[in-house]
Amino acid sequence: MIEVESKYWSPGNDKVEKALIRLGAKKIAEETMEDVYFSHPGRDFGKTDEALRLRKKADEVELSYKGPRMKMERAKAREEINLKIDNALTAQRIIERLGFTEVCVVKKLRKSYHLDRLRIDVDDVEGLGEFVELEILTESPDRSEELFELATKELSLERLEPKTYLELILEHKR
Amino acid sequence: MIEVESKYWSPGNDKVEKALIRLGAKKIAEETMEDVYFSHPGRDFGKTDEALRLRKKADEVELSYKGPRMKMERAKAREEINLKIDNALTAQRIIERLGFTEVCVVKKLRKSYHLDRLRIDVDDVEGLGEFVELEILTESPDRSEELFELATKELSLERLEPKTYLELILEHKR
Repeated sequence: MIEVESKYWSPGNDKVEKALIRLGAKKIAEETMEDVYFSHPGRDFGKTDEALRLRKKADEVELSYKGPRMKMERAKAREEINLKIDNALTAQRIIERLGFTEVCVVKKLRKSYHLDRLRIDVDDVEGLGEFVELEILTESPDRSEELFELATKELSLERLEPKTYLELILEHKR
Repeated sequence: MIEVESKYWSPGNDKVEKALIRLGAKKIAEETMEDVYFSHPGRDFGKTDEALRLRKKADEVELSYKGPRMKMERAKAREEINLKIDNALTAQRIIERLGFTEVCVVKKLRKSYHLDRLRIDVDDVEGLGEFVELEILTESPDRSEELFELATKELSLERLEPKTYLELILEHKR
C-alpha cells in the first residue's frame, strides 16, 4: 500500500473540527503520540528521504519505515511499512545496538477523523503549532488528488506544508 | 540480563530427555523454530560477533539482538535483547529496507526443559544434527559454571561446541 498525504497549516483546529463534524466526518481517535526518529548508521536519511520511526501511543507501540517521497502536485506519496511491537524501550535498545541514533522526538496531540475514503488528522505539534493532514492509503495514488482538492476547500486549508514534522523541527532547532 | 549458555553435541536426544525426566526436569515447550539471520549494512557481524535474528514459531514472532560473546571456561555469555512483534513478514520488510540482508535460515525442533534455575534445550537442527543447550538468564554470570558442570555430568554431555548454529551452518555450506 502507498500512503498519499498532504499537510496544511491549520486555519485553527477548532474551526477545522467544526467543519469536519458539519460534513459528517466520523471521529475515530484522539491520542497523544511521541515519535522517535532515528538516523541510519551508514546512510544519510536526509538525502535518501527515508525515515525510521518509533511511535509511542498510550496503549500501542509501532515501528515504521517510510520510503522516499514521490512528489505529486498537491500531495506526496511514500511507502510506509508499519509493525506493531510490544515494548518501546526494548525496541529502542535493539535499534541503538544496531548503530541507529535517536535524532529527534516529535510530540503531538492528534485527533483523527474519517470522511469518505479520507483520513484527516488534526494535529497540535509541540513546539510547531497546528496542522491538518489529509491521508489516503491506496494502490492508485493518482486518483487521490481530486479528493484532496475537495477537502481542502471545505476545510479552508490554504497553506500547504510539504515538509515533514521531523524536517520542520530540525529546521526550527538550527 | 545476560544470557549464559553452553552448547554440546547430543549423546542422543532420546537418552538426554530420559535423563532429564529422571532428574525431575519439567518440560515447558516443544516447538519448531525458523530463525532468519541478517547481515548489517555497514558492519561485519562475523567480526563484531553480533547477530540480528528473526525467530518464527507457530504462534509467536520475536526479533532479537545478540551482543558479542564474553568467553568463560565452559560457557559463553552474551547480551540478548528480545522483542515480541506481531508479523514476521512486515518485520523482515522493514529490516531489509534498512539495508540488512538475509544471510541464513536455521530450522530446528526444540524441546525445552526447566531444571532448577537451568533451562535446557534439546535441539534437532535441520542439516546439522542433535544438540543440547544449557542456559541461564542471570545478572551474575560467574556463578553459573558450577550449575553447568553438574548438568553436563548428569546428562552425559561431553563434546562442547563453542560455535553458534549460524556459524556451523555457514561453515557447512562452504
